[in-house]
Amino acid sequence: MKRYTKSNFPLAKIRRFLEPGPVVLVSSRHKGERDVMTLGWHTMLGFEPALVGCFIWDQNHSFELIRRSKQCVINVPTYDLVDAVIGIGNLHGGRGVDKFEKFGLTPVNAAKVDAPLIAECYASFECKLIDASLIRKYSLFVFEVVKAHVARSPRYPTTMHYRGDGVFMISGRSVSYRKRFKAVNL
Amino acid sequence: MKRYTKSNFPLAKIRRFLEPGPVVLVSSRHKGERDVMTLGWHTMLGFEPALVGCFIWDQNHSFELIRRSKQCVINVPTYDLVDAVIGIGNLHGGRGVDKFEKFGLTPVNAAKVDAPLIAECYASFECKLIDASLIRKYSLFVFEVVKAHVARSPRYPTTMHYRGDGVFMISGRSVSYRKRFKAVNL
Repeated sequence: MKRYTKSNFPLAKIRRFLEPGPVVLVSSRHKGERDVMTLGWHTMLGFEPALVGCFIWDQNHSFELIRRSKQCVINVPTYDLVDAVIGIGNLHGGRGVDKFEKFGLTPVNAAKVDAPLIAECYASFECKLIDASLIRKYSLFVFEVVKAHVARSPRYPTTMHYRGDGVFMISGRSVSYRKRFKAVNL
Repeated sequence: MKRYTKSNFPLAKIRRFLEPGPVVLVSSRHKGERDVMTLGWHTMLGFEPALVGCFIWDQNHSFELIRRSKQCVINVPTYDLVDAVIGIGNLHGGRGVDKFEKFGLTPVNAAKVDAPLIAECYASFECKLIDASLIRKYSLFVFEVVKAHVARSPRYPTTMHYRGDGVFMISGRSVSYRKRFKAVNL
């Protein structure tokens, strides 16, 4: 599978890749154990600091690794990773399986967190858990993105957006209406 | 503009239209005043009850109407409504402007809330605010969807997904991988 060469990317602009709502792969590591999970329930919660809210089901093996290590990496896979995305989703809750090995994903050391980046993903966002108070009631983890790695090409990735029932919407073209926006609203 | 004839839709399946991450139009009404706002920061938070978390900026005129009335309608516009979506976004904070009239949107009475549905939108989800405790810290409104209205055709709408900087991703095709999913994960 293709590995993306990624560059540092401004944190205030990561909405470009997360706000459209793609399925992401969340990687984590705690006390020598690592895991990857699929995630479709996430939303931006702020620009600066760059905050992301993620619903992580407590039946997912990654749940405890992320809660205890207080960090993770949110990786954006492109459509060519559909097999890995489905396979990882099918294995949720699976302990004792190294999903990096099983699905041919390459872990890469992050700069500011211990969780691994995924080389085959278009973008990787290093996250620190800044608020654990909503986990119990809503399974909602509030992360601050502390470093962003994004491929320079293509400009916009072809991402997968889950609809439930096994159906993905594949992202289409990106169209700029910049001239029609008031500057303050961009 | 086209008006969609919508039918009742199962609440447990509304992720089909919200989880892919489209820009939505949130309509509200309070004490005779109505408003519409654009919203891109939302996430599913549960199936049954059907919960949706929405980041609503306190500088938006709708903020107070929704907070006080404790209800709203989340409407899913299709790409043909791009002019209205941009226009409404440009007017955020605008008081004294009836955005339904200005942008040619038709308000329709809802069944379970006082806020109006938008006839020109593909889907409309009637929402009740069930948790206001996260508004102050995160501008996060937790809604329960209490009734869903969805057009029967097309099966999947062509939606707009905001990337910031005036750029929208237009939703592409939907592909079923249903046979590849473990039944428990569908």
